[in-house]
Amino acid sequence: MSKKYVIPFHEGGLEQKHLMGGKGANLGEMTKAGLPVPPGFTITTAACLEYYDAGRILTDERKEEIGAALFSLEKQTEKKLGDPSDPLLVSVRSGAVISMPGMMDTVLNLGLNDETVQGLERLTENPRFAYDCYRRFIQMFGDVVLGIPHCRFERVLQRKKEEQGVSTDTELTADDWKSVIERFKGIVKEETGNEFPQDPAEQLNRAIIAVFDSWNNQRARIYRRIHKISDDLGTAVNVQMMVFGNMGDDSGTGVAFTRNPSTGEKALYGEYLINAQGEDVVAGIRTPQPISSLSERMPAIYEEFRKIGNRLEAHYRDMQDIEFTIERGKLYMLQTRNGKRTAHAAVKIATDLVKEGVIDKRTALTRVDPEQLDQILHRRIDPKAELDVLTKGLPASPGAASGKVVFDADIAERWSQDGKKVILVRPETTPEDIHGIVASEGVLTSRGGMTSHAAVVARGMGKPCICGCEEAKIDLKSKELRVKGMVVREGDELSIDGGTGRVIRGQVPLIDPELSDEFQQILAWADEFRRLKVRTNADNPEDSAKAREFGAEGVGLCRTEHMFMEADRVPLVRDMILAETAEERQAALDKLLPLQQKDFKGIFEAMSGLPVTIRLLDPPLHEFLPNQEEILTEVVKLQMTEGADPVEVKKKEELLRKVRGLHEFNPMLGHRGCRLGLIHPEIYAMQVEAIFLAAAEVIQEGATVRPEIMIPLVGHVNELREMRKLVEEMATQVESRTGQPIPYTVGTMIEVPRAALTAAEIAEEADFFSFGTNDLTQTTFGYSRDDAEGKFLHEYIHHKILPDNPFMTLDTDGVGRLVSIGVKEGRRTKPALKTGICGEHGGEKQSILFCHRAGLDYVSCSPFRVPLARLAAAQAALIDIGEPEPIGKTS
Amino acid sequence: MSKKYVIPFHEGGLEQKHLMGGKGANLGEMTKAGLPVPPGFTITTAACLEYYDAGRILTDERKEEIGAALFSLEKQTEKKLGDPSDPLLVSVRSGAVISMPGMMDTVLNLGLNDETVQGLERLTENPRFAYDCYRRFIQMFGDVVLGIPHCRFERVLQRKKEEQGVSTDTELTADDWKSVIERFKGIVKEETGNEFPQDPAEQLNRAIIAVFDSWNNQRARIYRRIHKISDDLGTAVNVQMMVFGNMGDDSGTGVAFTRNPSTGEKALYGEYLINAQGEDVVAGIRTPQPISSLSERMPAIYEEFRKIGNRLEAHYRDMQDIEFTIERGKLYMLQTRNGKRTAHAAVKIATDLVKEGVIDKRTALTRVDPEQLDQILHRRIDPKAELDVLTKGLPASPGAASGKVVFDADIAERWSQDGKKVILVRPETTPEDIHGIVASEGVLTSRGGMTSHAAVVARGMGKPCICGCEEAKIDLKSKELRVKGMVVREGDELSIDGGTGRVIRGQVPLIDPELSDEFQQILAWADEFRRLKVRTNADNPEDSAKAREFGAEGVGLCRTEHMFMEADRVPLVRDMILAETAEERQAALDKLLPLQQKDFKGIFEAMSGLPVTIRLLDPPLHEFLPNQEEILTEVVKLQMTEGADPVEVKKKEELLRKVRGLHEFNPMLGHRGCRLGLIHPEIYAMQVEAIFLAAAEVIQEGATVRPEIMIPLVGHVNELREMRKLVEEMATQVESRTGQPIPYTVGTMIEVPRAALTAAEIAEEADFFSFGTNDLTQTTFGYSRDDAEGKFLHEYIHHKILPDNPFMTLDTDGVGRLVSIGVKEGRRTKPALKTGICGEHGGEKQSILFCHRAGLDYVSCSPFRVPLARLAAAQAALIDIGEPEPIGKTS
Repeated sequence: MSKKYVIPFHEGGLEQKHLMGGKGANLGEMTKAGLPVPPGFTITTAACLEYYDAGRILTDERKEEIGAALFSLEKQTEKKLGDPSDPLLVSVRSGAVISMPGMMDTVLNLGLNDETVQGLERLTENPRFAYDCYRRFIQMFGDVVLGIPHCRFERVLQRKKEEQGVSTDTELTADDWKSVIERFKGIVKEETGNEFPQDPAEQLNRAIIAVFDSWNNQRARIYRRIHKISDDLGTAVNVQMMVFGNMGDDSGTGVAFTRNPSTGEKALYGEYLINAQGEDVVAGIRTPQPISSLSERMPAIYEEFRKIGNRLEAHYRDMQDIEFTIERGKLYMLQTRNGKRTAHAAVKIATDLVKEGVIDKRTALTRVDPEQLDQILHRRIDPKAELDVLTKGLPASPGAASGKVVFDADIAERWSQDGKKVILVRPETTPEDIHGIVASEGVLTSRGGMTSHAAVVARGMGKPCICGCEEAKIDLKSKELRVKGMVVREGDELSIDGGTGRVIRGQVPLIDPELSDEFQQILAWADEFRRLKVRTNADNPEDSAKAREFGAEGVGLCRTEHMFMEADRVPLVRDMILAETAEERQAALDKLLPLQQKDFKGIFEAMSGLPVTIRLLDPPLHEFLPNQEEILTEVVKLQMTEGADPVEVKKKEELLRKVRGLHEFNPMLGHRGCRLGLIHPEIYAMQVEAIFLAAAEVIQEGATVRPEIMIPLVGHVNELREMRKLVEEMATQVESRTGQPIPYTVGTMIEVPRAALTAAEIAEEADFFSFGTNDLTQTTFGYSRDDAEGKFLHEYIHHKILPDNPFMTLDTDGVGRLVSIGVKEGRRTKPALKTGICGEHGGEKQSILFCHRAGLDYVSCSPFRVPLARLAAAQAALIDIGEPEPIGKTS
Repeated sequence: MSKKYVIPFHEGGLEQKHLMGGKGANLGEMTKAGLPVPPGFTITTAACLEYYDAGRILTDERKEEIGAALFSLEKQTEKKLGDPSDPLLVSVRSGAVISMPGMMDTVLNLGLNDETVQGLERLTENPRFAYDCYRRFIQMFGDVVLGIPHCRFERVLQRKKEEQGVSTDTELTADDWKSVIERFKGIVKEETGNEFPQDPAEQLNRAIIAVFDSWNNQRARIYRRIHKISDDLGTAVNVQMMVFGNMGDDSGTGVAFTRNPSTGEKALYGEYLINAQGEDVVAGIRTPQPISSLSERMPAIYEEFRKIGNRLEAHYRDMQDIEFTIERGKLYMLQTRNGKRTAHAAVKIATDLVKEGVIDKRTALTRVDPEQLDQILHRRIDPKAELDVLTKGLPASPGAASGKVVFDADIAERWSQDGKKVILVRPETTPEDIHGIVASEGVLTSRGGMTSHAAVVARGMGKPCICGCEEAKIDLKSKELRVKGMVVREGDELSIDGGTGRVIRGQVPLIDPELSDEFQQILAWADEFRRLKVRTNADNPEDSAKAREFGAEGVGLCRTEHMFMEADRVPLVRDMILAETAEERQAALDKLLPLQQKDFKGIFEAMSGLPVTIRLLDPPLHEFLPNQEEILTEVVKLQMTEGADPVEVKKKEELLRKVRGLHEFNPMLGHRGCRLGLIHPEIYAMQVEAIFLAAAEVIQEGATVRPEIMIPLVGHVNELREMRKLVEEMATQVESRTGQPIPYTVGTMIEVPRAALTAAEIAEEADFFSFGTNDLTQTTFGYSRDDAEGKFLHEYIHHKILPDNPFMTLDTDGVGRLVSIGVKEGRRTKPALKTGICGEHGGEKQSILFCHRAGLDYVSCSPFRVPLARLAAAQAALIDIGEPEPIGKTS
């Protein structure tokens, strides 16, 4: 098949979108549908790629083809480019396959020169208009094609207005524009060494090249990185006959949506300007009118536009974002595309379109971007609010909050009890700060990453949190937070947006989440189509209940260490760790047992009838002990203090010795997970006993319980074999003590590469696999997340060494390959093996698609991401049966 | 095929070794050859496994078969078990497939009871002999079968000798033995509640069961763990007619080797005792005579034995270890097996046997265990020396040394300059101790693992080193080393054996290494057969030269960080790291450049004509900075000191801030390897420039140089792509500056799982892969070696959670699978891709077999392991073409 390099609009359409780009294809589509579209043609993405391949050269062949298309356009419009008597003027616009609004360049009014401007003046009998057009053209061409700083032209305009004592462009006369044009030409000559090009054919070629080049300007590249659009697509260029909204009061230009993009309400929504070109609307110099007022000013045009809007919506079966121009009382359509919308609008429009019979529910499911759902589920900052953003940190837990700054957990608690809203600000948090986190609206830390203590705890509680905000210098002594010379003191108002990482001065207006009927409807439809089950990561009854409300079908990961970190447990846990004898240790464990049992009972009750996967203790024991540097500092100080109590000194020294004994060079790869369970079986035994006692109790109270005991960090089947024995022994013990049979299963996390690589063996001892893709990503890449995110990962993504942050989006080539090996080989040993994912990827759209394709049984994510996961799982299933791609890039 | 459970010797032989065990098979082999072997039969390993499967029960079927075999034996010997007139007496001995000398149990003289002992007395007309036999039987049976503590019998014997006023057993009379027997029977009754069993059939069954049980006694299990023998093999039991070496002065018993097992010299070597049973030789109560003296005492017997020895050697085509007994002037062969030997002897015997035409050189290669070669290459402790072993640590660098203890690198240097030999003892070493390590004979540290600074540096220098010797409490203030209450002070003599980890009090006699012609011969033969190339890990010219002397075919890993750690570099490296501006940093790099250039030049010269793989800087930068805790301590002290110089305080605080800024939670997974090169390209640029400048210089001086630039820690092809660009730019620069074309290649370490999993992509940018299996093992298992070896790995191996230490022996199922994926998929992209291994596994026998099978091109190991690798590579090649398995377990 020969590639098409140039396509006239009337031969185009959506089926050629990959060549014509979105804008060109839509113009073709509208032209074919008989809508009033100014004629033109598209130079395709194939031509753009050829241009780059040839080393940024437009080949002679291509130039000829463009010339031929231009000739046809001239015949169709009965005008000629450069004809002084009736000049054809054209716009030259970019149009990529995936929309990148405002990112690339546009040139309007092309074809004007010192002669044709006079023709335009004669034809329109409007000299002011003609010279206004010409100066606009020079200005745009100068900026876009010749690379002259925009400000140089702006300065001339500004000076001219000052000279004339006027404040707006519209007050300037034709003669004013003529003198501006002369000065503009002078700037061009000065900046480029050449006269402003007068040959319209040269103007056209150079404009086309400039648009091709704009594919690789910096903002376009950044936009593509953020939106994960390939750099290899190239852009098309649309050359279209100009129509003018600035030919007098019977002319105008505007942009309108067929439905409200904020609320989804079915009504034209947009704005227009009389006697203006499109850029005036964007530039914001004049305030546009709401589209509804057009119905009074030009009722026939409004009615025509309304009908066209309906036709377009019906044609595209989606809400449209339409650009239009009115030239001397005639309506022209310049562009239409599916409109961007808020999460609320997306949900409403999708469900409304189903009700209206325009789309079916499968299609509706593809119309909502799961990632947007966070907007609906959390309090957020009113988008209309003006913000005084101080700095940014890592968006560690979504939602927004305002409150008074406190630097201490105790004060947070006290102030909160006094009815004050507080934001807890700390360099980092430890288990000792938990009551402060509970008491505060949100947390801000200057250190730590997305898996730091503060982040994990805040996400668990559904509170906003920003971590690793390195620009924020926190001085705990003087109780001050300093950012770039600004100081925030204890009691000052501060706001945080945990979804974006923004730290904002003062209080900001917040919008409460509302779960509309439409929202529930979309999720109910999602449930019909998805194959993946959705569970939640929850460590307490409250989170479990919340997640169940959001549709969770069980707990996929209950992290028992968070229970150990609760303030009333920490002293017991420390006693257990620091015990000198087996008896002392057992005594501490005996005290922990009833507390753990209560924890589990609450979760079982909240999840009655559903499976609950409980992971036994995972982190290294030193995480429960005080910070080594702090103790060292205390010890040195005590040693230097004359008259210090020698008993106290000895005690602290002893503590330091113990903490040092437990110190690890790389705790992530150290003595944790089942390695703890194997060396200190008494800890796991206590946990398993507590689980079974709680289960027995809840069953006897009439609930249905299905505990799934998960052994963490298994790398060799023997580890699981030993731990399974321990669980089975404990089950037998508890069953015989309580007389209550308890149904349970035993499985493991697959979170080190060796576990995936030897899944066939490990499956012999496992009833289920849960892929712990957080740790699996760390070990597969050899990244410590806490270090990588602060030190190099940001640069890696910025410079495209990595396509994504692998801790956010599952790396399919490496980590994903291990997951697939694990699923396949595990099932070969045990066909009934249940498989799921409980890393953070379980709540991320692209990763969920991967999980669906890898054949997992379920994903598990934090409670507030459960709706997202339900929808993403449905989209994954639909993609696989060939439904239209959901909006947003998913693969 | 029906399993054989009982096999008479005359129907047995080596082809049934898997059933009969080594001893039984050899007895069968000798019987078939017509040698004088007392008749008997073997109860096979199949019977043993059945016994365990049945829950430690000998089935009736098996009992019947044993009865039938016994009946045949009675017919053959014309004696009957339990016949008072002419009793058959038998020995019951264990015999596993893989020899486990002394690990399992034996019962002799079985068949004696109160009646048959009288028959024996009559037949031999030697009452003392008969009752001596009986008391020995009761004693052994009591110990082995009835589980009565050996000491109880010993005490009776002791008391009897005291009563009689004699000092040796031989002085006791028949009556003495009779009374001893009565007391023994009393002990049996007391301990078991039953009389000593008089029924010979019961004695036999119980003895067989006891031998089966001894397969799982503690010392056998430990032996198998150490020697990597499967627990599932089981043991055979040999029932054999007793012959007696204790029937008078015309009787005797002994053990002899056909060649000297220490030196390999061809001459009978062994010892015997007149009028004794085998156990007397082992027990060491009487001093045995050298075998040579038998030629005077019993010339005919000696001659017969010599001939049989020659026949056996010719038959087995290897040096034999033979047990024999002379009963009333008649020679019996009780056992023969291939004899254990020292490395020196193994080499000499193998080459001698080739010279003698007994074996070919392929077979000779299988006769030397590569792991033994360390004995030959390093100084070692005279095996005859008596040692006062204080404690043990990790065997971090082989070889032995004695010297005066010093606790400080400066003192080490001073004393060494004064001509004293010193052993440097430190809690751990840092780059600042290098001059102390250089000055000392060996290093002992109480902290750190096999990859600690001390270990790596000492191995590089070929000096003995023991690390992580946790029992040793080092007090630097009082200059004392305390172990279990004993104190070693500065200046005291201490010895270390870095091959075993033994710390020994005082000076010990050392033996220098000698590389014999035979040693060179074996290695030359190895070179004929191996396919794998052998390179070395060397960071300086001395090591490179040493390795080349040992046969290295290039450098497989030159670690540039060791150059950075040299004492004169550390200040420059710190300047570079702590630089505030780009200029300061560049200035420090400019000073490092000529030093690095000199390093590389020396290595290129030493390796002229051979490839040299240089790895760019790998460790995180904080490794070059002072210890964070130490600075913190200093800062706190300064802060607490009144009148401290504020400039000094500020400086230290600033240093602490910087060190903290570089701190990482998991440095192993942090900002290191090419992640450094990507974020700080100026460091790699300096290194690459130094490499190319050195290469240009050496080439212009007439040498042949082939630098291979290795980029560490690549996990994504983009990392390598960027770094490759940097190398290529620098090559162009240096080539144009020096006018010297330089041949070079660029490749990467495969040391994180993702690199192996995406090898197909990474190979696009790589000329070679070097598998860094140290780090790959850490990431695949999720183990930090520094932490694991101290915290849980030892327990894991002890409890058989893991079969081996994966840092010593490559884990084929996990890490090996990744290596295979990497090789296969890398070569699919680039068939000419060169592949090697540079982790420590490159110098380990089993891992080298894996590398051979995985199709790698080379292994690289430390200089002193090069000979081992050459031999192991040859053995690997021979195994794959079906040569006899090398001695020692290799797969």
